[in-house]
Amino acid sequence: MIITFKYDTPKQEIENLSKELVNQGFGINYLPGEKLNIMGIVGDTSKVDIKRIKAIDWVKDVTRIQAPYKLANRMFHQEDTIVDVSGIKIGGNKIVVIAGPCSVEGQEILDEIAVDVAKSGAVMLRGGAYKPRSSPYAFQGMQTKGIECLTNSSIKTGLPIVSELMSIDKIDEFVKYVDVIQIGARNMQNFDLLKVVGKTKKPILLKRGLANTIEEWIMSAEYIMAEGNPNVILCERGIRTFEKYTRNTLDLTVIPIIKERTHLPIIIDPSHATGDYKYVEAVSLAAIAAGADGLMIEVHNNPECAFSDGDQSLKPERFDTLMTKARAIANVVGREI
Amino acid sequence: MIITFKYDTPKQEIENLSKELVNQGFGINYLPGEKLNIMGIVGDTSKVDIKRIKAIDWVKDVTRIQAPYKLANRMFHQEDTIVDVSGIKIGGNKIVVIAGPCSVEGQEILDEIAVDVAKSGAVMLRGGAYKPRSSPYAFQGMQTKGIECLTNSSIKTGLPIVSELMSIDKIDEFVKYVDVIQIGARNMQNFDLLKVVGKTKKPILLKRGLANTIEEWIMSAEYIMAEGNPNVILCERGIRTFEKYTRNTLDLTVIPIIKERTHLPIIIDPSHATGDYKYVEAVSLAAIAAGADGLMIEVHNNPECAFSDGDQSLKPERFDTLMTKARAIANVVGREI
Amino acid sequence: MIITFKYDTPKQEIENLSKELVNQGFGINYLPGEKLNIMGIVGDTSKVDIKRIKAIDWVKDVTRIQAPYKLANRMFHQEDTIVDVSGIKIGGNKIVVIAGPCSVEGQEILDEIAVDVAKSGAVMLRGGAYKPRSSPYAFQGMQTKGIECLTNSSIKTGLPIVSELMSIDKIDEFVKYVDVIQIGARNMQNFDLLKVVGKTKKPILLKRGLANTIEEWIMSAEYIMAEGNPNVILCERGIRTFEKYTRNTLDLTVIPIIKERTHLPIIIDPSHATGDYKYVEAVSLAAIAAGADGLMIEVHNNPECAFSDGDQSLKPERFDTLMTKARAIANVVGREI
Amino acid sequence: MIITFKYDTPKQEIENLSKELVNQGFGINYLPGEKLNIMGIVGDTSKVDIKRIKAIDWVKDVTRIQAPYKLANRMFHQEDTIVDVSGIKIGGNKIVVIAGPCSVEGQEILDEIAVDVAKSGAVMLRGGAYKPRSSPYAFQGMQTKGIECLTNSSIKTGLPIVSELMSIDKIDEFVKYVDVIQIGARNMQNFDLLKVVGKTKKPILLKRGLANTIEEWIMSAEYIMAEGNPNVILCERGIRTFEKYTRNTLDLTVIPIIKERTHLPIIIDPSHATGDYKYVEAVSLAAIAAGADGLMIEVHNNPECAFSDGDQSLKPERFDTLMTKARAIANVVGREI
Repeated sequence: MIITFKYDTPKQEIENLSKELVNQGFGINYLPGEKLNIMGIVGDTSKVDIKRIKAIDWVKDVTRIQAPYKLANRMFHQEDTIVDVSGIKIGGNKIVVIAGPCSVEGQEILDEIAVDVAKSGAVMLRGGAYKPRSSPYAFQGMQTKGIECLTNSSIKTGLPIVSELMSIDKIDEFVKYVDVIQIGARNMQNFDLLKVVGKTKKPILLKRGLANTIEEWIMSAEYIMAEGNPNVILCERGIRTFEKYTRNTLDLTVIPIIKERTHLPIIIDPSHATGDYKYVEAVSLAAIAAGADGLMIEVHNNPECAFSDGDQSLKPERFDTLMTKARAIANVVGREI
Repeated sequence: MIITFKYDTPKQEIENLSKELVNQGFGINYLPGEKLNIMGIVGDTSKVDIKRIKAIDWVKDVTRIQAPYKLANRMFHQEDTIVDVSGIKIGGNKIVVIAGPCSVEGQEILDEIAVDVAKSGAVMLRGGAYKPRSSPYAFQGMQTKGIECLTNSSIKTGLPIVSELMSIDKIDEFVKYVDVIQIGARNMQNFDLLKVVGKTKKPILLKRGLANTIEEWIMSAEYIMAEGNPNVILCERGIRTFEKYTRNTLDLTVIPIIKERTHLPIIIDPSHATGDYKYVEAVSLAAIAAGADGLMIEVHNNPECAFSDGDQSLKPERFDTLMTKARAIANVVGREI
Repeated sequence: MIITFKYDTPKQEIENLSKELVNQGFGINYLPGEKLNIMGIVGDTSKVDIKRIKAIDWVKDVTRIQAPYKLANRMFHQEDTIVDVSGIKIGGNKIVVIAGPCSVEGQEILDEIAVDVAKSGAVMLRGGAYKPRSSPYAFQGMQTKGIECLTNSSIKTGLPIVSELMSIDKIDEFVKYVDVIQIGARNMQNFDLLKVVGKTKKPILLKRGLANTIEEWIMSAEYIMAEGNPNVILCERGIRTFEKYTRNTLDLTVIPIIKERTHLPIIIDPSHATGDYKYVEAVSLAAIAAGADGLMIEVHNNPECAFSDGDQSLKPERFDTLMTKARAIANVVGREI
Repeated sequence: MIITFKYDTPKQEIENLSKELVNQGFGINYLPGEKLNIMGIVGDTSKVDIKRIKAIDWVKDVTRIQAPYKLANRMFHQEDTIVDVSGIKIGGNKIVVIAGPCSVEGQEILDEIAVDVAKSGAVMLRGGAYKPRSSPYAFQGMQTKGIECLTNSSIKTGLPIVSELMSIDKIDEFVKYVDVIQIGARNMQNFDLLKVVGKTKKPILLKRGLANTIEEWIMSAEYIMAEGNPNVILCERGIRTFEKYTRNTLDLTVIPIIKERTHLPIIIDPSHATGDYKYVEAVSLAAIAAGADGLMIEVHNNPECAFSDGDQSLKPERFDTLMTKARAIANVVGREI
């Protein structure tokens, strides 16, 4: 960590802070300049509160050199983390495709979709039982009934299920019935929720927040890991920008960045990222070419009647075409689907 | 609501949708064009799911004309809402200033700050007992102890208290002890939390999310109101942009927009918006000149030792100067502090 | 185009506007609603000034249904445009790779790089002779000397050259010596520059602006085409967002969108998009998988000594590896490099 | 400047760079850490190319401590710069209001507006003769005829004129006839244009770019100043964000920031910032309360017929009301209009 002092800072002020930091166990190296004075702090600075130091009148700026995350940091954990979901490995050589409707809408329709996506090669079933909707007047999900439908479909098809947990009071239900607990974009910094899922051993699919930096996203993974749960899967789903032709702007550069900085698996959700089924195939192939460990895709056999996000759902035939192409790309980059 | 169809849409398709909408009670007006065909939907379209219609292959675009909020909409509720907090009116002629430390750190220090800010003219005390921190290693707040400190300070000074609720399992504590329940920026779309506070009659201070549009923010107010609680105070605290010299970008234009579109009071948090105590005074005065109903400002008597956000806290003397100037501006725009 | 009037708009006002528009040759369809009144305008509305209509007191909103571009619009020009650069076709089945240093720094070094990239499969040479730099103290390019070096390298290797034109007074030099004239991101809305290159018949590589929407980008292509030059190649190079781990956020979804809405070729610049050579390969492969017509990549044989953008330049060996992988992906998506 | 090396960097590598920098006249202070090694560079680093150093394989990061601007930097120039426009001082105690139509549309209408705004207290006349329009089909300005109209109005009313220069080939016309040369947001990084106006002694009104950081904006001022022209007036006009209810997001915090970091005057353009006449008054008053040195406001006596930006233009009566209120706020903050 680097502290920059104003050039007219009294020596006494610098010495005071220096002593305080040495007492906390840090090494100090002081570097007076022409117009500014610089102090380097050596040691594990991940727990130092930058804002407290910035509040000192003589301090001009504070710069963190080390990343503020440790458990998720590849620097301290070289091998890739592979998350095991009932025998399916996420983060290994095989690319994992999760598919299903945005919302669970009923048993029959869910079963049909599950059978369809499994036939095309999906290995997990997604479906929202509790739905975060920006309008209180929109369909809020089938809730417990929806979890039951997912469980039934899972039994019939053998596909493990992924569903979003929105509130801490449903944690027991999710631990019991859901294979991968999803934390949605809007809850990426719902820290109480992160702590609660961190106390389980369940695989957690952590979506990137609408307007969160990669660093904040990794810090939210760190929250889960700090509670004792190492089974975190990161999921990019697009960020909010000024562009209006797409629902969000998909940031695929996160793939090599996450691989470089962390040891966690990273998957891509092209449906929420683009918000339009017509663009889903192109960016899905792109994600695999860029090294993604998986995809999570919305599929619906009758999108016009979907209770939510119908405009971004693929029909099963289109999903099947996508899978064929995805498989070919995966082979070229030395992986399988 | 306007639906645009591709120009080669079969008549039958358009008639089908038309019939369906008429059956739902809407009026329809069809408008064939040269290259596009347009259908206007007349009636209360706030509950129509746009995405479902967009999923129809022949549909090119759907545009909502009416705002999707009703209870918060000034169109249906002309008079200003005035929220009463133990006799203090928010949204009336008097501008309300809320001040206090970012985090509650102990009884003594809180009492001192409370006395100081009250002396300068603050009429409510803010303080975080539960703290949303991006790092799991940062101070997470004094929690229940913090709420106790706030209650004690409130008794001593007579100032009602504002504190942030982060999780639904603390709702009883907040209803019992806290005068204004704050929903933080990161929880603006934590819909379960919104529903829970909507079921109380407590005044709710709803912060705008980091990257949420004004419309989404009003929709979150609508969530609270739809549960039966009309006591919503909106609070702008800056949005996330590419700019790096400030913590967030304060959007003061929201003041006339909120006044035009809704009947709810709007206050400004200059501390989180700028992230730097040096800029707090300038933007506080600006907020009052633009018509804000209040300010929420971080004050600490020893910012260098603050447990959080020390860099954006004012010392009591600076706060006092600010209040003197703010009072003068308020008078010029026909209001009082 | 749809005009929404306030519900209490006097009939006379609506009739006046209606008449004016009919006189201008538009068809009108009026649709009174409960709370709002809607008017649909039928005809070629691309030249109607929305803001002028919005200025009418009774008008609540105006929505454009038709895209504001015509020459670039696929609706009016179904076949793909293929731009010919000295026999190299951009926009056809073959994917075109352009490579070279950020800045031209001298003849010898440029020749070396040109030979290297040609060996690996690049078919055009890029290099900046005039450099847009945010600091007046940074290297501003070799200018005319740089263009000479490019021309010499082109003669030796047979590679056509791409270079950025920053100012209208250099147009003759560029028309004479440069094969593809690049309009940089910062000049995407330098309309005088667009008009000047529109008056030539040269292929124009039009970069997307830092913070420009896809629609504005297409409108800038329209500027060039409206002057008579149909040879426009679009180039995405990342947009500005809040994310700080990358120089820009690369928006690959533009590829299917540009293909859907326009008939112009689209290439990707992964070097400026990511700002870090370590991420260039991953996103280059992604771009090809998503359907890009080409790549423009910075290559330098000694990035540590590059006069500009050394951190995002690939060494020739890394570029060679990238090309091998890119070729494999291209084959899978039915194309060649 | 701080360079961070990877922890396993060979000593020889660090020594080599160290020597090179010492040879360039910098002081070096080396600081080995546990996981990272840090090197501090002391001296005037404003001309060091960060990216070149980042390109070194062993370098993890480079952080600039000193601001990259010098001539605009208050650190080296304590007193406020006051720009003199025919006797009108911008940056002093008096707040300067510039008003007029978006585009010049004819002599008579311009004269009327000029007389009206002068009566209300505006001291300069604005009007676009050359117009940057995103559509090639939109009105492009009266051009030289427009400059003539402005000159005539100026003679009649005594108001100096402000107009936007879009292209270097019109510089002579502007130097001869225009009192303040405006560089528009889209040209903030048109470096050739900046250099050309930097070679004159004219007052330059430099608008902040749509998506440019404050630092880049100051660097563009530095471009002008580095050519010898110290007469730069900065103008904030809103930045591009995800918000859709306003044309741009006005960033008023720039006022105290510009005052702290530079010695240049700063004015606000509420018309382009909000894009809606209804919000102009509120944010104008806010700007003055926050310490702005001036306002630039669009006024039109018949906005419905304005050739451009009618929706954001004030009618003269509304402008007059605004001025009365603005004067009262100015007095409270110790200034005059």
